[in-house]
Amino acid sequence: MLKEAIYHRPKNNYAYAYDKETLHIMLRTKKGDLASAWLIHGDPFDWKENAWQKNELEMALSGSDSLFDYWSVELRPPYRRLRYGFKLKDTNGEEVIFTEKGYFEEAPIDTNDYFSFPFLNGIDVFHAPEWVKDTVWYQIFPERFANGNKENDPEGTLEWGSASPSPTNFFGGDFEGVIENLDYLAKLGITGIYFTPIFKAHSNHKYDTTDYMEIDPQFGDKDTFKRLVNECHDRGIRVMLDAVFNHSGYYFKPFQDVLENEEESPYKDWFHLKEFPIQTEPAPNYDTFAFVPSMPKLNTENREVKEYLLQVGKYWIEEFDIDGWRLDVANEIDHQFWREFRSAVKSVKPDVYILGEIWHDSMPWLQGDQFDAVMNYPFTKASLDFFAHQIIDSKTFVNNLNALLHSYPKNVNEVAFNLLGSHDTPRILTMAEEDVDKVKLLFLFQLSFTGTPCIYYGDEIAVTGGADPGCRKCMIWDEENQDIELFSFVKRLIDLRKNEPAFGNNGELHFLYAEDRKLVYEKKLDNESLLFIINNSEHDESIDFPYELQNKKVLNLLSGNEDTDIEDLKIKLPAFGFQVLKVTD
Amino acid sequence: MLKEAIYHRPKNNYAYAYDKETLHIMLRTKKGDLASAWLIHGDPFDWKENAWQKNELEMALSGSDSLFDYWSVELRPPYRRLRYGFKLKDTNGEEVIFTEKGYFEEAPIDTNDYFSFPFLNGIDVFHAPEWVKDTVWYQIFPERFANGNKENDPEGTLEWGSASPSPTNFFGGDFEGVIENLDYLAKLGITGIYFTPIFKAHSNHKYDTTDYMEIDPQFGDKDTFKRLVNECHDRGIRVMLDAVFNHSGYYFKPFQDVLENEEESPYKDWFHLKEFPIQTEPAPNYDTFAFVPSMPKLNTENREVKEYLLQVGKYWIEEFDIDGWRLDVANEIDHQFWREFRSAVKSVKPDVYILGEIWHDSMPWLQGDQFDAVMNYPFTKASLDFFAHQIIDSKTFVNNLNALLHSYPKNVNEVAFNLLGSHDTPRILTMAEEDVDKVKLLFLFQLSFTGTPCIYYGDEIAVTGGADPGCRKCMIWDEENQDIELFSFVKRLIDLRKNEPAFGNNGELHFLYAEDRKLVYEKKLDNESLLFIINNSEHDESIDFPYELQNKKVLNLLSGNEDTDIEDLKIKLPAFGFQVLKVTD
Repeated sequence: MLKEAIYHRPKNNYAYAYDKETLHIMLRTKKGDLASAWLIHGDPFDWKENAWQKNELEMALSGSDSLFDYWSVELRPPYRRLRYGFKLKDTNGEEVIFTEKGYFEEAPIDTNDYFSFPFLNGIDVFHAPEWVKDTVWYQIFPERFANGNKENDPEGTLEWGSASPSPTNFFGGDFEGVIENLDYLAKLGITGIYFTPIFKAHSNHKYDTTDYMEIDPQFGDKDTFKRLVNECHDRGIRVMLDAVFNHSGYYFKPFQDVLENEEESPYKDWFHLKEFPIQTEPAPNYDTFAFVPSMPKLNTENREVKEYLLQVGKYWIEEFDIDGWRLDVANEIDHQFWREFRSAVKSVKPDVYILGEIWHDSMPWLQGDQFDAVMNYPFTKASLDFFAHQIIDSKTFVNNLNALLHSYPKNVNEVAFNLLGSHDTPRILTMAEEDVDKVKLLFLFQLSFTGTPCIYYGDEIAVTGGADPGCRKCMIWDEENQDIELFSFVKRLIDLRKNEPAFGNNGELHFLYAEDRKLVYEKKLDNESLLFIINNSEHDESIDFPYELQNKKVLNLLSGNEDTDIEDLKIKLPAFGFQVLKVTD
Repeated sequence: MLKEAIYHRPKNNYAYAYDKETLHIMLRTKKGDLASAWLIHGDPFDWKENAWQKNELEMALSGSDSLFDYWSVELRPPYRRLRYGFKLKDTNGEEVIFTEKGYFEEAPIDTNDYFSFPFLNGIDVFHAPEWVKDTVWYQIFPERFANGNKENDPEGTLEWGSASPSPTNFFGGDFEGVIENLDYLAKLGITGIYFTPIFKAHSNHKYDTTDYMEIDPQFGDKDTFKRLVNECHDRGIRVMLDAVFNHSGYYFKPFQDVLENEEESPYKDWFHLKEFPIQTEPAPNYDTFAFVPSMPKLNTENREVKEYLLQVGKYWIEEFDIDGWRLDVANEIDHQFWREFRSAVKSVKPDVYILGEIWHDSMPWLQGDQFDAVMNYPFTKASLDFFAHQIIDSKTFVNNLNALLHSYPKNVNEVAFNLLGSHDTPRILTMAEEDVDKVKLLFLFQLSFTGTPCIYYGDEIAVTGGADPGCRKCMIWDEENQDIELFSFVKRLIDLRKNEPAFGNNGELHFLYAEDRKLVYEKKLDNESLLFIINNSEHDESIDFPYELQNKKVLNLLSGNEDTDIEDLKIKLPAFGFQVLKVTD
């Protein structure tokens, strides 16, 4: 047994409360090393005749990556307290006990030698709003979605779609435009919109906020926004706004005041100024986002700044009933601020959703006291590498996803914000070398994976575009230039996700088969399994059916046929072909 | 290179802010596997000519345990942002790059592939009060320290020391008794007293609180307590009280009200009641500490309970100027409560100390938002196993301590509450089979180790006693029955800790030699090293001097001699003998 590979440390993803009664315990071991693993567990105070009353529970191999196996088990301690260790048996029959104090031949007698989950306190349980895990998001970059009102167009606005997007041009997208097209979105089936920033700002992307309490006039006014939110809610669509709290724009009044009044400014502690006079060129002598002088970093440790931003967080919920906040550059702001932010916004709307923009490993923000989710860029990368760029094989894809899934608690994974692209990345169709078949596989995988999918506006009708600013093209509304077949495909997937109980987060995901570019995975719920069979290659392929089918009913979910193309338990798929089969007892 | 053994995950002990400018990064690898390790690092936004500007910094092998080596490095990122990975070279010359996204032959180009410490926000830095790391604690069990006022003795109080301690007898220890003996404590040199509970309660140990806002009358009144705190402060001694917030006593008024009024009680949500009528026998139908019916668990998620207990936390600071709170059964109370507790008590006294009673791995409570320290029972166990029980050898002792030191950040280790015994454990002299020489080694090690030592009352004069209640004997005040030589020895160690800069937390600890029962370690500060040379065996031993001495000045700190017993670079030590040498350039 390779002891060096064995890892467990409470809490985080290795030992956590899934709900107010249930603990999940996970153990990492060397890939292929163990034959079986048991959890040795008991209440720390349950002693009889000088012996700790412990039990054993077999753990399941819940997944593997390139180096490790992950063993998982769920239990409900009757008094919500747990001491535990692991009994491990390797493939040679060697058996050891692993606890907090190390390795033993026999289970230790002293409960202090064991790992501890001292008490399952409900208030500490990671708990995202219930509605999130059933939501299908749609991301709108407001300047480029639809121009519904010419009267609020900024000076120099170009004809819709008449030019390539540039870092500085304007096409007049606005709230009226979104309202006019809500039926389009309702038809697609999405149930949440994430708007990139809408507050007063200079740029077309609005990440350089001038006033956090005002709508940018190019989008409309507060009444229009209120109408937009109501129209969304009427259609069962939630609304999430983008909060840029790491830094302000250059023209944010407090920063202007500081530039003007230097150390005399009452706002001098609102930023991280290093010396006076303030200098912006050649390099700013204050902290900024990246090294951008026009984006001064806000001092979120300062009580006034904190109160101002928390007020912003509450205002748009209280006055406009928004349903979520996406937090820009969330990782560079202090944890203490985010704890207070959570407490503030949840106090006015308990089921508001908090989504952080973090591109890297995010466990420190997902412990229940800060965010409900982060933007799942590791999911994005794995999916693009496999389906769009075709640079990893199925085994590597599954290894990468298993590593990702096992790096967070299950209740965190269920609300992960799974995006394929955004205003910050090239469009998926462009990355997939304009091959719509690959894009279909991307959508199929995204919409059936654990978490909550987000579609970047236009991807559903095959809009193309390279890196920013290319990915910020005007939405195409001329149906002749929309890929209607792709739209219908995405709509069908969303329907399935809504109507097939195992398709979304209630189905438990298992990867069943990964070889070359062939992939089979299952979503399982009770007696029902959905099988996703994918040929992610440019050749016809035949896939051995990895599933016992005798006495089972098989329904092809996309064709609607009861029979399938299964011949001798083989499934034939064309290049980039796929099937989704529903197997019931 | 054994990749399965390699571990790093920010933040916790692997990547943390040591202070507002400094990051510490640590990596775990298989013991003996690597020849060297470098940190590859840079500011995530520092790009020139399409290339990320990264640097390399060699890491030091900071310690090893039985399975792993730990590599550490310290750096001050100029913009407080860091992306980083590791360049590892094994003993066969194989070189790999390790980052968040896995293993590479060449350093990845995309900064998103690296580990991230996104921003060093000062407010998130773990920061215990400055005074703590220079404090030497003394634990007093008030009922048994000294009876200074016969008038407040409870009914049936026994003559001081006239009987063995029992779970129910009383000897009349009180505040007057402590005040009378403060000069004794000042002479010993301690600078902080930790009092087990002093609030109104039924038992002699007072862990069954009846009223958190009142002093137990057997100890005195609030005026006496105020006088006690002032007298302590006059002598440079801080005062820490014991907060029993996990559960109340049976006679706590809200619980009595619940017992009387059942579901009509306004306090019914103060506890975790499962059904009515409330039943205490044969088993309580409400949550308790362990399974003790007279200790009902408080519902610290309830707003009223929270406000009451936070008020308690603030009251004794505001009114009596206490300096710290020791939190009983701290691990079973919710994290959210402790975050609010920290914020409440620090708001009235920013440098108040918060010490949690946790016996197991405590990283989730030591991230800067909850406790300043925990009771360091893993230190206790390692020290007792080596010096008192003599059941582990030097190598195992060093492995255990290195594993412990590397499981927390350095700023956490510096304020760890290092106890050898308490009211919950047998006395050290009894565990050491009444061999005072072993107790001396225990004190020598405790007082020179990283963290803040705590002496259990009476251990310094060789009081004996088995497990509770044996360890709660009356303090011995008759000098003829005190071990004056041991007292002087402990006093001398405390003096050295105060006056030799490298003796306490400013000295960096290195284990230099561990063989059989021989141990040499160093505390190093600038050009000065203190060498602790220990023969923890019952035989004379000769220890090869593990240090280059040419052109160095050597002072024997305990004898005061400039020369030492070094012969041919060997040090001869009798059974359980030791030397402390100060080596300067």
